[in-house]
Amino acid sequence: MENAESRPDTEVLSVHECWKYLRSSSVGRIAVVRGDSPEIFPVNYLPDEGTVIFRTGPGTKLDAVMAGQKITLEADGFNTYGTIAWSVILKGYAEIVTKVDELQESAAVELSPWEPGAKGHLVRLTPAELSGRRFVISAPSQ
Amino acid sequence: MENAESRPDTEVLSVHECWKYLRSSSVGRIAVVRGDSPEIFPVNYLPDEGTVIFRTGPGTKLDAVMAGQKITLEADGFNTYGTIAWSVILKGYAEIVTKVDELQESAAVELSPWEPGAKGHLVRLTPAELSGRRFVISAPSQ
Repeated sequence: MENAESRPDTEVLSVHECWKYLRSSSVGRIAVVRGDSPEIFPVNYLPDEGTVIFRTGPGTKLDAVMAGQKITLEADGFNTYGTIAWSVILKGYAEIVTKVDELQESAAVELSPWEPGAKGHLVRLTPAELSGRRFVISAPSQ
Repeated sequence: MENAESRPDTEVLSVHECWKYLRSSSVGRIAVVRGDSPEIFPVNYLPDEGTVIFRTGPGTKLDAVMAGQKITLEADGFNTYGTIAWSVILKGYAEIVTKVDELQESAAVELSPWEPGAKGHLVRLTPAELSGRRFVISAPSQ
């Protein structure tokens, strides 16, 4: 990991700031490892009680969940003026949500898949690590 | 990989469409594998003659480049009306650009780092695989 703390223009986010930013967006990217290959998938996600829920269908993401592999979610964005950027990384392990009534009923309905298709599985990603950074957009520096 | 071709609402992009979409954006995410952990980093990127250039400083991304690991770039976006989404995935191996005069001079200047700090290395990612999908945003389906 690059050391954000050493950079005067970068602010390391606290846990509650990370969640505030995660709540401000709904599109993130899930990364999983398949063999030696890093795989990335855009997802719609929904924060739920200190965890993140997303939908998936059969495929690489579901295989990674079922195999108990480490999964990383990243979300990023800008402020309204495009002058400040943020990025939050959540790493953890995921499990299929078997009891949908554990979720607010509306959540399961609201959570559209990023891509249409059979995305019948709701997955809950529980963070083992949560980190975030915020910084002012700057000109290139070398 | 989920089988996009089996979904009537999803269109698999041709190579030239993938590049058209990559050129329409400048923010993507790089995924690399560190141990058993998938790592994601937002980056600014610039397509350059069938490859993609991004900046990096010392850290996980540079380590992955130097170790000759497989690297994945993902970019996504929406059309103006937010009704059609696209996602492009480029997988390959990267190398440090040692001769910056190989690039258009303007490219190295234009290519701001995503995050401020010492990002002195220009990296060229050459695709071994390029794929993309485009689809109409739909209501949840299970």
